[in-house]
Parts: sequence; C-alpha cells; structure tokens
Amino acid sequence: MPEPDLKHCIGTDRFAGHVGIELLDVQPGRATARLEITDHHLNGLGRTQGGAVFTLADLAFAAASNSHGIAAMAISVNIFFVKGTSAGAVLTAHAVEISRNSKLATYQVDVLDETGDRVASFQGMVYRKTPAKIPVK
Amino acid sequence: MPEPDLKHCIGTDRFAGHVGIELLDVQPGRATARLEITDHHLNGLGRTQGGAVFTLADLAFAAASNSHGIAAMAISVNIFFVKGTSAGAVLTAHAVEISRNSKLATYQVDVLDETGDRVASFQGMVYRKTPAKIPVK
Amino acid sequence: MPEPDLKHCIGTDRFAGHVGIELLDVQPGRATARLEITDHHLNGLGRTQGGAVFTLADLAFAAASNSHGIAAMAISVNIFFVKGTSAGAVLTAHAVEISRNSKLATYQVDVLDETGDRVASFQGMVYRKTPAKIPVK
Amino acid sequence: MPEPDLKHCIGTDRFAGHVGIELLDVQPGRATARLEITDHHLNGLGRTQGGAVFTLADLAFAAASNSHGIAAMAISVNIFFVKGTSAGAVLTAHAVEISRNSKLATYQVDVLDETGDRVASFQGMVYRKTPAKIPVK
Repeated sequence: MPEPDLKHCIGTDRFAGHVGIELLDVQPGRATARLEITDHHLNGLGRTQGGAVFTLADLAFAAASNSHGIAAMAISVNIFFVKGTSAGAVLTAHAVEISRNSKLATYQVDVLDETGDRVASFQGMVYRKTPAKIPVK
Repeated sequence: MPEPDLKHCIGTDRFAGHVGIELLDVQPGRATARLEITDHHLNGLGRTQGGAVFTLADLAFAAASNSHGIAAMAISVNIFFVKGTSAGAVLTAHAVEISRNSKLATYQVDVLDETGDRVASFQGMVYRKTPAKIPVK
Repeated sequence: MPEPDLKHCIGTDRFAGHVGIELLDVQPGRATARLEITDHHLNGLGRTQGGAVFTLADLAFAAASNSHGIAAMAISVNIFFVKGTSAGAVLTAHAVEISRNSKLATYQVDVLDETGDRVASFQGMVYRKTPAKIPVK
Repeated sequence: MPEPDLKHCIGTDRFAGHVGIELLDVQPGRATARLEITDHHLNGLGRTQGGAVFTLADLAFAAASNSHGIAAMAISVNIFFVKGTSAGAVLTAHAVEISRNSKLATYQVDVLDETGDRVASFQGMVYRKTPAKIPVK
C-alpha cells in the first residue's frame, strides 16, 4: 500500500496558492515553504501584512504536521513578528516538530528573509484525528 | 485640523483586499471586518485555511490598534482555532481594545460564523511608534 | 449521586496553596481566584514575578475547565502582562469559558488589581480526557 | 566600571526562591534554571502544577533577557505543555535569545525532564527600558 502523497495533498491548498506560497519540501515532521513579497502582500502602511507572513508559516506547519499521514488540525498558534519587510523580500518558513503524541503535536516555525534575518517566530499545536488517515490520492 | 481618515488608511490594505476581506466599521479602540469563504480560501482538506481566518482577525486588529492615529505594529499574536468552516461560511471579526499605554496596547478579536458560533479567539499586542502619526490623507 | 466536589478537588492544589492563592468561587465554566502580593511574590527588580501572576490565572483556569466534572489538562496558554504591580497589590483572576467541545475547551482569564486595572490577559486551552471523571470525594 | 552582577540581581528573585528554583547559569542572551518537583509543586490531580513549570521557564527567560544589562520586562508569553510530570521529576529550563532590537527581544525556553523529554515549550517577548540600566550591586 503506497504512502500518502503528502506533498500533493498539502500542495492542493488553494488559499496558499492564492497568496502565492510555494511548498519547497516536506519530510516526516518538517517542511519548508517560500513566498516572494509583492505589492499585493502589503498592508495600508506599505509593509508586509501579518496575515501573509502567518499564512506562509501556517503552510509549512500544516505540511509538517500532516507529514505522518494522520490528518492534523491547527488548534493553537502563537506568532512573534520581529522584523518588518516590504515588497521584494523573499521569505522562507522552516517548520520542525518539537513534540508529538497520539492526539497532540507541536511545531516551531522560523520565518527568515533573504538575508537570513528572522522575520517571525511561530509556534503551533495540532489535534490529530486518530482514525482519519489522509486519503491516498 | 481633520482627524486621520483611518478607515481609508486601513482600507488600502492590499493583502486584505486580495483575500477578499471587507472592513465594516472602525471606532476608537474597536473594529469589525467580514469575509465570505469561497473555494480559494480552502486548504488541502477542503476546510477554511487558518491563514484566511488569521488575516480576517488581523485586519480588525490593525484597524482597532491604529484607530487612535498612532501607527501601531503587531508584535505578538495568539490564536485558538475552535470551529472549522468551509465554503459558504460568512465570518465576522470583532476587535476590542483591552489595554493601552504609550508604547504597548492589546486587543481581543473574536471571529464568529454566520450562526454566531465562535470560529477563533485571537489576542494581539502592538508596539506603538510614539512620534509617528499616521499621515492625514 | 452527588456532584463532584469541584471546589474541594481544585482546592487541594498544593502549589496554589504554597503560593498563597485562594479559590473564591467555581461555577460551571467559570471561576475566580485571589492573591495578595507580598514580598515573597517579587522578582529581583522588586516587582510581582510573572510566575505568581500566571499561577493565579492558572488556578482560575483549572477550576473553570474542570468544573464540568471531566478532567481537563492545560495544553496551551498565552499571557500578556500589561501592568506591573508590587507588594500590597491584591490581584483577582476571573476565568470564563469561551468554547468547549468533547475534547478541547478554551478560557479567557482576566487578572485585575484592587483598583480594577487589568494586570494580565490570559487565554488557555485544555484537552479533556473523555472517560476519566474527576473522582467524587 | 564593572559589569552588572547579573546572576546576583536575578538571583534575588524571591518568588523563584520561594518556589525552589535554582538559577544554574547566565550568559549573554541565554540562561539555565532547575527545579526538583516535590509535593508542594503538585496540583489537585497529583501532577506538577502548570504555574510551577511556567515559573521555572520564566526565571530562565528573565535571566537571559536581562543578561545584557538593560532592564527587560516580560510582555507576552506563550507556553505549550506537552508532557505531564509528578513528584521526583527534575526539570531544567534552557532559555535562548532568538531576536533583539533596542526595544523588544524574544526568547525560546525549552523545559526538559531528567530523561531529556520535553515537558514544555515557552516563547517569550520582553520590552526593554532603554535608559534604565540594572543597577550594579
């Protein structure tokens, strides 16, 4: 029986696609995603909108937390915004699993800009639906 | 001298516009925003993506926190996702100020669906740039 | 069959007792606790230590989340510290349930000082152990 | 002129002393603290109370964030509780700086038990009072 095609399943995230986020890599318990900031990611003050940064981190979080083949729902997220960016920045989010049991798992997601500076620190928890395997596509 | 046109300034948030969020109301220390969930707000599992819910809450938060005419930057946000939704849902975010001093302020944002059920609870803190008034448009 | 003696069960919290916290009231989904700040609650700068404020809020949270007779474990907490206090302050924490399903529930806890000013805003989530009822004492 | 005696200043934290926490090490931007769990750290269910775990992490956070000689106040903390412990456990908290500018800094604090398992993941932000140096003792 084949492994779930995780990258395909998470890759069909339409909202992330609408925002312009690319999922670069998924491994068990970790994932990386990327977003180039353009004008339509900016807020009313000309800076990258927090929701765009959050959504980038959230896609890496979703990919990492679903990487074991058990459907995982985000239940709690904390994000610190530590450096502002604007159009032209290239942001990368790296998600790593920091704990996991049968029902709950937690992830650290670091968002960096193209110079390697940290833009945001995101910490998320998921609830894992025990029987519901992600369907194999 | 006129008050800053806050609704205009926040209303030029291009990312919120790209996502389809409408700012309904801004008062000193409070704001309301709205998002109708359509297919492009969904994740790979067919549910509303967390980033869409976050961005809705974030716009209400930004509007409320900038409502005093002092530029405010989000520095820390916690969000609990408590009910999933999907296409056809109509979400409303209500932001209310819960504390404010010269440098820091905090806001509670409740996201409800069209039945009045809570979808998410968002708590955010901003850093206020003391001298920098939002330019009057 | 009697209701679980919730106040008794939470009232045996030895750590809260060691810190000097008093549980004032427990109702289904809500609770209130109180702490008078004395010298042994202060940090190295002479201010109330964050852990004392957290523990006060946490006891109200624990009492509210266990008030339905199902054992509830804290899994995620966010706290904003918005006003410093020192010896002589009297802090009160009010916990209110904001969502609850069979496995997860969330609570808002407001910590106020004796003047009614907000000292901290605490938002917590619990995991509910479905079959394990709190034993009736 | 001598450097502030940081370990002394943080070491006078009376609440941490009351709880039984020992500050093991402070370096610029990092710190380690330790707590042996005894009966008076337990909650009404016989498990280590969340406030005790928080206070341990908070002391390491305070030591790391004040390690540059500028007084730093905790403003926002998120904590995930991922493994329960009880009497006899020996917990260690390791705080590391993840960002810092002139006004705000953020720290990751990992709390581990004596087997190396993660007990909690704590992420905290401080506001730095620009002119106020910690007095040299």
